[in-house]
Amino acid sequence: MGSVYGRCFKVSTFGESHGLAVGVIVDGVPPGLELDNQVIQYELDKRKPGTGKFVSQRREPDTVEILSGVDGNGKTLGSPICMVVRNTDSRSKDYESIADMFRPGHADYTYFRKYGVAPQPGGGRSSGRETVARVAAGALAKIILAKIGVSLAAYTVRIGSVRAQKVEIGFAMDNPLRCADPDKAEQMQAEIAKAISDGDSIGGIVEVIADGVQPGLGDPVFDKLDAMLAAAMLSIGGVKGIEFGEGFHAAQLRGSENNDQMRSEGFLSNHAGGILGGISTGQPIVMRLAVKPTASISIEQQTLDTAGKACRISVKGRHDPCLCPRIAPVAESMAAMTLADAWLFNRAFQGIFS
Amino acid sequence: MGSVYGRCFKVSTFGESHGLAVGVIVDGVPPGLELDNQVIQYELDKRKPGTGKFVSQRREPDTVEILSGVDGNGKTLGSPICMVVRNTDSRSKDYESIADMFRPGHADYTYFRKYGVAPQPGGGRSSGRETVARVAAGALAKIILAKIGVSLAAYTVRIGSVRAQKVEIGFAMDNPLRCADPDKAEQMQAEIAKAISDGDSIGGIVEVIADGVQPGLGDPVFDKLDAMLAAAMLSIGGVKGIEFGEGFHAAQLRGSENNDQMRSEGFLSNHAGGILGGISTGQPIVMRLAVKPTASISIEQQTLDTAGKACRISVKGRHDPCLCPRIAPVAESMAAMTLADAWLFNRAFQGIFS
Amino acid sequence: MGSVYGRCFKVSTFGESHGLAVGVIVDGVPPGLELDNQVIQYELDKRKPGTGKFVSQRREPDTVEILSGVDGNGKTLGSPICMVVRNTDSRSKDYESIADMFRPGHADYTYFRKYGVAPQPGGGRSSGRETVARVAAGALAKIILAKIGVSLAAYTVRIGSVRAQKVEIGFAMDNPLRCADPDKAEQMQAEIAKAISDGDSIGGIVEVIADGVQPGLGDPVFDKLDAMLAAAMLSIGGVKGIEFGEGFHAAQLRGSENNDQMRSEGFLSNHAGGILGGISTGQPIVMRLAVKPTASISIEQQTLDTAGKACRISVKGRHDPCLCPRIAPVAESMAAMTLADAWLFNRAFQGIFS
Amino acid sequence: MGSVYGRCFKVSTFGESHGLAVGVIVDGVPPGLELDNQVIQYELDKRKPGTGKFVSQRREPDTVEILSGVDGNGKTLGSPICMVVRNTDSRSKDYESIADMFRPGHADYTYFRKYGVAPQPGGGRSSGRETVARVAAGALAKIILAKIGVSLAAYTVRIGSVRAQKVEIGFAMDNPLRCADPDKAEQMQAEIAKAISDGDSIGGIVEVIADGVQPGLGDPVFDKLDAMLAAAMLSIGGVKGIEFGEGFHAAQLRGSENNDQMRSEGFLSNHAGGILGGISTGQPIVMRLAVKPTASISIEQQTLDTAGKACRISVKGRHDPCLCPRIAPVAESMAAMTLADAWLFNRAFQGIFS
Repeated sequence: MGSVYGRCFKVSTFGESHGLAVGVIVDGVPPGLELDNQVIQYELDKRKPGTGKFVSQRREPDTVEILSGVDGNGKTLGSPICMVVRNTDSRSKDYESIADMFRPGHADYTYFRKYGVAPQPGGGRSSGRETVARVAAGALAKIILAKIGVSLAAYTVRIGSVRAQKVEIGFAMDNPLRCADPDKAEQMQAEIAKAISDGDSIGGIVEVIADGVQPGLGDPVFDKLDAMLAAAMLSIGGVKGIEFGEGFHAAQLRGSENNDQMRSEGFLSNHAGGILGGISTGQPIVMRLAVKPTASISIEQQTLDTAGKACRISVKGRHDPCLCPRIAPVAESMAAMTLADAWLFNRAFQGIFS
Repeated sequence: MGSVYGRCFKVSTFGESHGLAVGVIVDGVPPGLELDNQVIQYELDKRKPGTGKFVSQRREPDTVEILSGVDGNGKTLGSPICMVVRNTDSRSKDYESIADMFRPGHADYTYFRKYGVAPQPGGGRSSGRETVARVAAGALAKIILAKIGVSLAAYTVRIGSVRAQKVEIGFAMDNPLRCADPDKAEQMQAEIAKAISDGDSIGGIVEVIADGVQPGLGDPVFDKLDAMLAAAMLSIGGVKGIEFGEGFHAAQLRGSENNDQMRSEGFLSNHAGGILGGISTGQPIVMRLAVKPTASISIEQQTLDTAGKACRISVKGRHDPCLCPRIAPVAESMAAMTLADAWLFNRAFQGIFS
Repeated sequence: MGSVYGRCFKVSTFGESHGLAVGVIVDGVPPGLELDNQVIQYELDKRKPGTGKFVSQRREPDTVEILSGVDGNGKTLGSPICMVVRNTDSRSKDYESIADMFRPGHADYTYFRKYGVAPQPGGGRSSGRETVARVAAGALAKIILAKIGVSLAAYTVRIGSVRAQKVEIGFAMDNPLRCADPDKAEQMQAEIAKAISDGDSIGGIVEVIADGVQPGLGDPVFDKLDAMLAAAMLSIGGVKGIEFGEGFHAAQLRGSENNDQMRSEGFLSNHAGGILGGISTGQPIVMRLAVKPTASISIEQQTLDTAGKACRISVKGRHDPCLCPRIAPVAESMAAMTLADAWLFNRAFQGIFS
Repeated sequence: MGSVYGRCFKVSTFGESHGLAVGVIVDGVPPGLELDNQVIQYELDKRKPGTGKFVSQRREPDTVEILSGVDGNGKTLGSPICMVVRNTDSRSKDYESIADMFRPGHADYTYFRKYGVAPQPGGGRSSGRETVARVAAGALAKIILAKIGVSLAAYTVRIGSVRAQKVEIGFAMDNPLRCADPDKAEQMQAEIAKAISDGDSIGGIVEVIADGVQPGLGDPVFDKLDAMLAAAMLSIGGVKGIEFGEGFHAAQLRGSENNDQMRSEGFLSNHAGGILGGISTGQPIVMRLAVKPTASISIEQQTLDTAGKACRISVKGRHDPCLCPRIAPVAESMAAMTLADAWLFNRAFQGIFS
């Protein structure tokens, strides 16, 4: 089921929405690293559904238990680190009335076609609950990256028709929508409030930035750094697109506008988004993710059930009206995993015969 | 160098712009398939620089030699198929005057930082010449896919400020710019002509469509079909973004607008672009690629040389003013390789205990 | 740390001897399979240290908890199955007096050189305790294989100077040494008793047989079925060699003796051990494993400590005097995992254009 | 078809016995390495069928052409190196009379069952001719390993009933049988001469030694160094077993005999064959390969044809009566590839937080 990721920093995840637990094994964490449980817990807490009406009301402590890979002093042993988070607040009864229907915009239909398995409560393996494992693994990656001066941030730059005009990362981290622009936060909240009052949901854009990445990460041809980041990001449910640097805007640019010229002090611009020829330039890596509106809406929709019968569905339950604030920490985690893996893999070849 | 791709349909490529040859080994082509050299050659011809002023003037027959994997009757044996195309028209002297300079927007700087290797004539391994190998491999993938009713097309839907309003694939395939809209072809040509006359280049958008893909391809979590397609597409030089279905436009949509509802006869729309939860729905897979303006421009730019000295560069030589028509066949090839691989991998698990 | 195995049937393990738990995620179990916990528990029980003086006295219930991948009716969902077994009887105090010494024949020295980590109680990740995870994964593989008529058995055919002259699998499965030959079981026990009374240990040979394997599994060149089985078996601690069919005895044979001739009814012999050209023939796959004598002995030996100081060590604690009966179920598990993976992978290409 | 090998040092091979060419792409050769064509040619020459009656009489120059990966000064670029060797002396007519018969001991039957492909002249992809590609790739690996002080040697230690009593590597390298023991070379030749005069063939044992390997290579659990070497060796046609250090002899040993004790100056013995817990100890890595007698014999044997009809076959043509001298250079190559890959992969994690 494609639940294994990475070449050096190898991540294997498990868990369904309404099963006993979700979790992850990370094989490839270097030995001798001090591992603070609280750092991992902090990351998991950032992923958790928040308070207020803008996010899902699912309430779980999401306490991580580390089952392996660490010695008595909290130092990594080099062996695989298994982290498990128990599911404690899955309400399957929310799903009983729609048990056999394919929820539009969800993976119910495609899972049924691929696995022959009827829609699972909460989406089963396709649930956003699965991202707990990614965030736990991402926390380890971030701890490694912090040691080499790499920091990551993901924040909301658009919700519906409201676009951020500036980015203040500090503000975003404290904002319930992860909105990057203090001047637009209220409008974004209003946009969501409107969607909610209509029993609907709304899309947005999340930007991810990785600062401090050394030049040279990524492998040309098929394993380009942007190719691997793109796969990492598109593997997040709800993400329907990615762009680097100027991205789609580059379609309208001339080469003379889009090229990043250099002077002795370095690049004069970063239209490339920190990657050239699939290899990091040393400038910040900048990418933006297209986030679709939440598929679960209470507005009635047409669909089929597993018997092929046409029916109407209204998806109740606890759902985020906009996925951006939930996706942001997951995007940070996937970026961290990808960069940690690229960094480790790059070490294999670095400085051999030169 | 990341030159190996795929799980079942495994592709390994080699070759630098100004070396002896470029080529590919494909391991994982099923046995018993009739392989028509002319089909492969036809695909390679589509990739070749065309005529006229809109594309690079490099002139090579690009004749493919198949070294293995086929029996005396042209049937595949199940063994790896090696295809080699000799380089015959590389003009290294075009690069002599700028040999030590990092061409802005190219991989020269990042390759130098990663490999300690000075800029190679024509970009060496980072040259678009490398895509010959992708197209040869893609031709094999297309032959397989054709057998199961999957067809692919890639065409230009935007150049600079000119956007296609409709898509006529037949027209696009014969148009030198692969322009999808007969009514916009002239304007797109004018956009390019302007760029050329300024010694500049221009960006665009390529759309790729895969028709006839069965439901069920792709593996959830990290190996989602869209994740793998995204990696495949971002691995093409000059591609800076990808989106599926509504893509970035979904940021502005409500769930009620973006969800694809179903009736007995099937989906009522395809906002998802043919993929839900990382698995194909059976609808056409639709993706769009952001193509940056060609980095090689004759307009003078600031840059550094390998000694770190600031200098000015004007990149002469034979360059495409817009990459879209060159990228389109490569994008088809990468999509074909990814889909062939996903189809084969899916067969491993299909219909086992049901 | 190399804790991930397989292409289609993907196994990731974790856990140290004296940590909280050992366990495994298996991604690639087909959906719709009835999963009986008791079957898995039965396999784990077979792996457990037995009774009597011939095996380690470590006492743990080794109760498996399945955290994911199964629906409410015990049917597999196609999603990763995580299984965890808690460690409850690790006696670290057995290791206190020798904490900084490299135990001869163990991985202490090499782990220290590779990871910079001092010897862990019980061997940490290099402990035989790690094989709990393999056996749990192997149980899933066996359930799959049973559905397609493949059965596995591993049994002891030699301990020290005592060799089995015949193989009775039923007898072996009930014998505490897994001895295959009822007439030799007592002599084998005597061989072990002698070693114990000397504070020493003894080596042996385990034979593994896979019955009912269809022709065609395995991929030529680097992924030959015997190559993959060899890797699987040599990945088990204490195994120092493997041979297929005639194996090392083939060194003394003529081609006319070693070739397996065919008649209409099939092969006339099985000197090849069921594999030709890296692909299964349909005959039983037969392999034998060289098992070294247990490294932990109470006889005093010379060694170094982590500071490089020469010292003397006598390894106390609960150790198996002969590894054969412990390795046999693990060997079955590794064979099962390898065959399940080969079977799934083979399905990808089976019967496509023929 | 399993023709791709390695994680960092990635090898892809192609070619059938009677096709146009055999060859290989190696992706993962570090940049800046001086590549002497003659070194590669030298290795290929060692693999070539020799003179005299003890080896196959196939006569080909086996001249390697390097198509990529090297700059004008013969230095590696870091990009994939493609090497091609043309087939010039394939005599398909030797195979015409037996075209539809499964040669006993060969892969004809299993390929037919797996691929539905009738026996190919010379064995097609399963031919020993395929090892040209391995030796070319191995030559690159050896050049890398030589830089870090690792040397490899493989030599014959047994043919039929004749066993080497000592090892003189210098002698072996010049001996047509690669016999390690000057006092036994004549007897080994006599053993082969006897087999030839009977229209038969004979098996043997090849020993491989890797000297100068640093401690710490190999990854515990599934990617143990011995597991990977075992897979590499068993991937060579005709190899039916492998053992490390004491190997199968350890079955008869006590722990006190088999453990390698240490003193300040290092290990006192090398029963382990240079690997403990799957990680190199720094001592020589010693392994022995069981080599089956050549399957092609002129003695008449019973077999089937592709229609299932019983028939009799006498395999004429140019065949080695004993595979040992042909397998030795291939074994060196596979060991070199595996060690180069392990060394590179190990660099990824080496010395990070210590």
